[in-house]
Amino acid sequence: MIKSPICEMLGIKYPIFQGGMAWVADADLAVAVSEAGGLGIIAGMNLDGQALRAEIRKASARTDKAFGVNLMLQSPYIDEAVKVVCEEKVACVTTGAGNPSKYLKDLREAGVKVIPVVASVALARMMEREGVCALVAEGTESGGHVGELTTMALIPQIVDAVKIPVIAAGGIADGRGFAAALMLGACGVQMGTRFLAASECNIHANYKDRVVKARDIDTIVTGKKGGHPVRVLKNQMTRDYYKKEMEGLADADELHEMTKDSLRRAVREGDVNTGSCMCGQIAGLIDQVKPCREIIEDIDKEASQLLNRASSFLD
Amino acid sequence: MIKSPICEMLGIKYPIFQGGMAWVADADLAVAVSEAGGLGIIAGMNLDGQALRAEIRKASARTDKAFGVNLMLQSPYIDEAVKVVCEEKVACVTTGAGNPSKYLKDLREAGVKVIPVVASVALARMMEREGVCALVAEGTESGGHVGELTTMALIPQIVDAVKIPVIAAGGIADGRGFAAALMLGACGVQMGTRFLAASECNIHANYKDRVVKARDIDTIVTGKKGGHPVRVLKNQMTRDYYKKEMEGLADADELHEMTKDSLRRAVREGDVNTGSCMCGQIAGLIDQVKPCREIIEDIDKEASQLLNRASSFLD
Repeated sequence: MIKSPICEMLGIKYPIFQGGMAWVADADLAVAVSEAGGLGIIAGMNLDGQALRAEIRKASARTDKAFGVNLMLQSPYIDEAVKVVCEEKVACVTTGAGNPSKYLKDLREAGVKVIPVVASVALARMMEREGVCALVAEGTESGGHVGELTTMALIPQIVDAVKIPVIAAGGIADGRGFAAALMLGACGVQMGTRFLAASECNIHANYKDRVVKARDIDTIVTGKKGGHPVRVLKNQMTRDYYKKEMEGLADADELHEMTKDSLRRAVREGDVNTGSCMCGQIAGLIDQVKPCREIIEDIDKEASQLLNRASSFLD
Repeated sequence: MIKSPICEMLGIKYPIFQGGMAWVADADLAVAVSEAGGLGIIAGMNLDGQALRAEIRKASARTDKAFGVNLMLQSPYIDEAVKVVCEEKVACVTTGAGNPSKYLKDLREAGVKVIPVVASVALARMMEREGVCALVAEGTESGGHVGELTTMALIPQIVDAVKIPVIAAGGIADGRGFAAALMLGACGVQMGTRFLAASECNIHANYKDRVVKARDIDTIVTGKKGGHPVRVLKNQMTRDYYKKEMEGLADADELHEMTKDSLRRAVREGDVNTGSCMCGQIAGLIDQVKPCREIIEDIDKEASQLLNRASSFLD
């Protein structure tokens, strides 16, 4: 079994986080991951305070294990969301889509550990200076909103820049990726795409099916030109969007209109033709829907075996 | 010391290839790498038959160790180049920028081992079917011409798809990256950017200096819209190019004009403002110019130590 300082820090068995995917990461998924020994994370996303509190309480009622909440800093409800996670004394939050500086004091005072998701050395350094307890460093191969740097290039550069634990995210779906992340200096991994194909994940069967069937080249990054790159599975809408975006055939409003409500349509209605099926490049490796416990135990076992026989690579 | 089946196959000491970088990878660099125990590679690039033969003979006169040639399949001289590597009985060739199928028979008959550079599972499978002896799988974090998939996502997917040895390229510049690549299932690594900052690398001091000083976020991919993405260091020219490309402010001819001769200007004249300094994302990790022998021995040593103590990650 892989051990890591992040396990003691958060009171979890495996240093494996489940990504706080908007519209996807609900209490059901988070509970399944935390019960299996990883860190389940509820997506705060655009939930208002009341809805987020209900989701947190739903999870608390079903597990006494630690779980987290992902705070989307661009959410219109972010102030309420921070208040709720403080009041509900959630174990930790990960933060995405910006700089969480203004909320750090309140969260710390409430005993909520803060783990920002970063995609560059500069933000990693700034977050450490502000006293966060760990970082998720996420490569551009991830699904959803992405940065520029890849996991392979990003992790060692962040590890060299900070002293706090770094969790690697992006392109990881099996024990090989987990072991590789540890070699790069990470203390654990966060997986999103792998958990899209978990039995307990409530996304529509059409979306899950597309993840399982995806090949290596089946994702695309749209929105880069507008400064909000998002990795999704290629489909009719995203090809059309990409073409219009790249060739300047639609203005920002028209492009925005194309993606409006598109993530919900994919997740809830299973509209995989005009919906946004956010998904990472590693989907090509995933060919089976499995329960969270099996996902986590299999990955830990495979990584442990690799590390155990690592000296066989040596002469 | 790391051992690997690719070492026996090619008669090299370390499973470390030096990327066959156009305008950069000359006989001096290839000899230094091969003498240090890695696989030095001469860039065939746009050399005509005579010039390539001269470079190969220069290397042969200075080392009896194996070295390779990178064949750029879009070169106007590709037919002569293939003829020359066959006649000169070069140990192996790597091939870039396309599908080398039509040359495989001649190369095989001359005893030249063929190792295509691939960026997708489909090309990897096709190449294995055509009988190549190994593959370099290159992630998008690499410098120069790039594909879409990152090293972390690409390597395990290619390893699962083929039985021949896979060499990982992209985002690797130290022992952590080397060890991580082995965990992902690779049999070795190819490094380009790390060797840009080798003492024996003949690029202009200005270019080398930019590589050493580069931060994580200092590269950009231009040419994506036109279907020929190239990763380079950000500078006046590449920012201008990217803006014109993205906003449709210049047609293909104008864009082509901006980059014409730009790699030569960077490499030979040290023009780091309007030249193309091709460079990978891992440049941020490189802070020192070192001889090839030191680069290779340090990386092997660091990776060996990591693998030796890999069981310390286990409970």
